[in-house]
Amino acid sequence: MSDLRKTSVQDLLRSQDLDREVLVKGWVRTRRGNKYVQFIALNDGSGFHSIQVVANAEQFPEDKLRAEGVENGAAIAVRGKLVASQGKGQAVEIQADEITVYGSADPAVYPLQKKGHSLEFLREIAHLRPRTNTFGAILRIRHAMAFAVHQYFNDHGFYYVHTPIVTGSDAEGAGQMFRVTTLPDQNAPLTEDKSGVDYTQDFFGKQTNLTVSGQLEAEVAAMALGKVYTFGPTFRAENSNTARHLAEFWMIEPEVAFNDLQDNMDLAEDFLKSLVRYALAHCEDDLKFLNEQYDKELLTRLQFVVDNDFQRLTYTEAVEILKVAKQKFEFPVDWGTDLQSEHERYLVEKHFKKPVILTDYPKDIKAFYMKLNDDGQTVRAMDVLFPGIGEIIGGSQREEDLTKLKDRMAAMHVPEHELWWYLELRQYGTAPHAGFGLGFERLILFITGMANIRDVIPFPRFPGSAEF
Amino acid sequence: MSDLRKTSVQDLLRSQDLDREVLVKGWVRTRRGNKYVQFIALNDGSGFHSIQVVANAEQFPEDKLRAEGVENGAAIAVRGKLVASQGKGQAVEIQADEITVYGSADPAVYPLQKKGHSLEFLREIAHLRPRTNTFGAILRIRHAMAFAVHQYFNDHGFYYVHTPIVTGSDAEGAGQMFRVTTLPDQNAPLTEDKSGVDYTQDFFGKQTNLTVSGQLEAEVAAMALGKVYTFGPTFRAENSNTARHLAEFWMIEPEVAFNDLQDNMDLAEDFLKSLVRYALAHCEDDLKFLNEQYDKELLTRLQFVVDNDFQRLTYTEAVEILKVAKQKFEFPVDWGTDLQSEHERYLVEKHFKKPVILTDYPKDIKAFYMKLNDDGQTVRAMDVLFPGIGEIIGGSQREEDLTKLKDRMAAMHVPEHELWWYLELRQYGTAPHAGFGLGFERLILFITGMANIRDVIPFPRFPGSAEF
Repeated sequence: MSDLRKTSVQDLLRSQDLDREVLVKGWVRTRRGNKYVQFIALNDGSGFHSIQVVANAEQFPEDKLRAEGVENGAAIAVRGKLVASQGKGQAVEIQADEITVYGSADPAVYPLQKKGHSLEFLREIAHLRPRTNTFGAILRIRHAMAFAVHQYFNDHGFYYVHTPIVTGSDAEGAGQMFRVTTLPDQNAPLTEDKSGVDYTQDFFGKQTNLTVSGQLEAEVAAMALGKVYTFGPTFRAENSNTARHLAEFWMIEPEVAFNDLQDNMDLAEDFLKSLVRYALAHCEDDLKFLNEQYDKELLTRLQFVVDNDFQRLTYTEAVEILKVAKQKFEFPVDWGTDLQSEHERYLVEKHFKKPVILTDYPKDIKAFYMKLNDDGQTVRAMDVLFPGIGEIIGGSQREEDLTKLKDRMAAMHVPEHELWWYLELRQYGTAPHAGFGLGFERLILFITGMANIRDVIPFPRFPGSAEF
Repeated sequence: MSDLRKTSVQDLLRSQDLDREVLVKGWVRTRRGNKYVQFIALNDGSGFHSIQVVANAEQFPEDKLRAEGVENGAAIAVRGKLVASQGKGQAVEIQADEITVYGSADPAVYPLQKKGHSLEFLREIAHLRPRTNTFGAILRIRHAMAFAVHQYFNDHGFYYVHTPIVTGSDAEGAGQMFRVTTLPDQNAPLTEDKSGVDYTQDFFGKQTNLTVSGQLEAEVAAMALGKVYTFGPTFRAENSNTARHLAEFWMIEPEVAFNDLQDNMDLAEDFLKSLVRYALAHCEDDLKFLNEQYDKELLTRLQFVVDNDFQRLTYTEAVEILKVAKQKFEFPVDWGTDLQSEHERYLVEKHFKKPVILTDYPKDIKAFYMKLNDDGQTVRAMDVLFPGIGEIIGGSQREEDLTKLKDRMAAMHVPEHELWWYLELRQYGTAPHAGFGLGFERLILFITGMANIRDVIPFPRFPGSAEF
C-alpha cells in the first residue's frame, strides 16, 4: 500500500472523482453482511459519517475477517476502488481490494461494543467516548467554536493575549482558588514568628493560586494594544457538584480600550451571533445528529438566536417585570438581590422570548472593578441571558477613575498593594474600556444542546474527580 | 464627537479615502513642535506605526496642550481631517479639529517617559511594557503566530482538543510538577497509619498536579478523531533561572493516527515553514523593527528556514559527525549520551547550515512512550533543531504495541495503574500514531529574534516571580 497516500473519510464522501484507487484508515464502527458480501462502516473521526466498505465474501469470507479481528472498534486500513454506491444512504462506497488490521478490539471486553450507553457510563470511560457518534460530534463542534472565536477576533483586529495561569493575587474576586505549591505537604517551613507557612520559600517566593479570570491582565494589554482577548483555562475551587459547574473550564475574555457599555453590548451580541452562524454553517452533520438524538429544538433555538435582536433593559426594569410576573418563583425578587436562574429564564423564555441583556446592576452584587454610574448605586455591568442556559456572558465597562476605583476596592476589602499595577493603569493614560467573559463550555452546552457540562469538555474536572 | 465612529490607526494609515472627518483614540507617543504647529504621534496598538496628528498652535497652543496633559503616555481622542501628509515618513496625517484628554500621564513619574529602557527594567513593569515599540511588536507577532497555528491545523483537518491542566497523574515524565491543592497549608489531614497526607480529602480526592504535557490525552483524541492538536499552558517546577526556561509556558502538540515517523517529520517541517511564512507575510512592520533594533540577521534567518529543506539524519550519524568535528566541545560526545546545546548548534549552524531533524535516539535518554526500533536499542524519536535556538520541536512515533509499551514502562518505573486508560488505547483498536510538541515561546523567540524567553510572554513565571 506504500505508494498510495491515505485520504480522509470526509474527503472521500465529498469526492466527485470516482473509480479510482484509494487508501483509507480508520476504525470499524459496524460489520455486517452475509456469505456473499460484507459491509464495513469505517470511521476515521474526520467527520460524522462513516464510509461504507464493501468486501466481496469470496476474497474476504466472514470467518477470515472475524479471525483477523475486523470487528467493531478495530483499527484497519482499506485499499480499494471508490465507486458510486449501489445502496441507499451514501453517495459513494469503497470496493475493498486489501484490508490490513492494525489492532483489533476483543468483542468480549471492548466497552463500546453495544450502542445506547448512558452518558453517565461514558463519563467513566472518557478515554473511549470520543469514539462514539455523540462525543465525536461534540468534540468537532467544540473545535469549530474555538476556531470561530479566534477567527472572529483576528478578523476584527483583536490581539490574542495569554494571561497567566499561576497568579500571585487572590484578589481577582471571582471565586475560591486552588493553591499551587512545591513546598512539602507536611511540615512546610514556617515564618519566624510561627504565625503561618513561610511562602517566601515556595517556588515563586509568595503564595500562588490558579487564576479565576484573565481579565485584570487583559486590561493591561488593552491599554496598550487597544483590542485584545484571552482564551484560556480558569479555575474555581468551589464544591459545586452540578451539571453547570466545572473546577477547570475555558474562558474567553475580550477587552477593548475606549469602549463603553453600549459598545460592549454590541460586541457581545455580534460575537455570539457570529459563533452560532459559524456552527450552523460548518457543523451541519454533527448538529443534525444532536438535534435528532438529544434535543429536537436545538436547530430551531440556534436559528432563533441568529434571527433576533437581543432585548436590552436595566436590572431595575427587569425587577419591575419580575415583581408583577404571574409566575410563582422559588426565590423572591427585590431590588438589590441577585437574580436566580429561574428569574433569568423567565425573562428570556417567557416574557421576551428572545436573548436578553441586563445592565446597570446594584453595585453591591457586582465586582469592584465595574464602573459606577452617576446614581452612585448601580454599576455598568451587563449579563447576557440565553434560553436554556441563563447567563452566558458577564461583563462591564470598567472603572477608569483612580479615586473611584480605590473607593470601591476599600468598600469591598480588596487590598490595594496586591493590585498596584492594576491601579497604575488608571494613573498613566487611563481611558474608558469595557469587556466581558464568555464561559466556553456554557457556549458549547448551548450549541450542542447537551444538558451536562461534563459532557462538553474532553476530560472534566470536578470535586472528587481528576481522572485521565 | 458622538456620531462619528472611531477608526483604528492602522486602518487610517492604509486608507486611500482622504479629506474626510475621522475620529481616532489612542495614546500619545511623542509631542513636539513650535509656536506655529504641534505634532502628536498617536498610537492605539493596532499596528506598529503611529499616526501623525497636526495641531495648529493657534487653536492648540503648546501651553494649553501641556496644561491639559497632552504629554507622552496620555490617552486622548482626536477628531479631525485625514489628509495627505506634507512631511516625510508617512503618507497621511490628521489635521486636528478637536482633542479630548481621557487620562494624562504625569511626566514626573510616568516610567516610560524616556526611550531606551533596558529589557531588564521593562520586565519589572510588565503592566506598562506592552506600550513600548518592542513589546507591542512582540505581542502582535505572538498573536499572529497563535492564529497561524490554529489556521494551519483547521485548514489541514485537525481538531483542537483542550487537554486537562490539573492532572491526577505524575507519570507524564517530562519534568518536576507543581502540586494543586485546597487542603490547609498546615496540619493537613493524615492517612490512618499517619504515613502521609490523606489526599482522599483533597478537592479531587487524590493528589493532583499541573500538567507538564497534554500528549497522553491528545493520543486519546487522535485514536478517535484521527488528527488533533493541543495548544495550552504547561508547567515545570524546575529551578531553572535561565533565559530559555519558564515555569509556565504554552505548548502546541499535534497527534495523528496512522502517521509514522516519516509523516511526523513531514508535518513538523511543513508546519514550521508555514508559520514562518505567515510571520513574514503578516508581521512586516513589527519584524522590520525587531530586525533593525535587536537582530540584524533576523529576516535573513527566517527566510532561510522557509527556503531550505531540513536536513534529516539519525542520532547515530550525528554522533559520528560530532566525534570528528574540528570544534572543541565543553561536553564530550559519545553514543548513548544526550546531545548538549553546543552539539545541536554545531550541527545546524556550522556543519549543515540549515535546520536539522535528528531521529532514532537511544531508548534510555527518551520517554517511555516512544516506539522501539527493531534494533531494540533506539526509539523513533525526532528532534527538530533550529539556528540560534537548538531544539524547537521534540516528538516521536508512539509505541502502539501493548506488550512492548508495558515493557518500556516497567523498565522506566512508570506505574501501570496510573495510566490504565493510556494502555487501553493499545488494547482496543490500536494503530500507529505519531506527534510532537512545539514550545510556543521557543517559536516566538525564533520569530522575534529576542534573546530572553521572559520577553516573549506577557507575564513570565519563573522561580521567585509570579508578579502581576
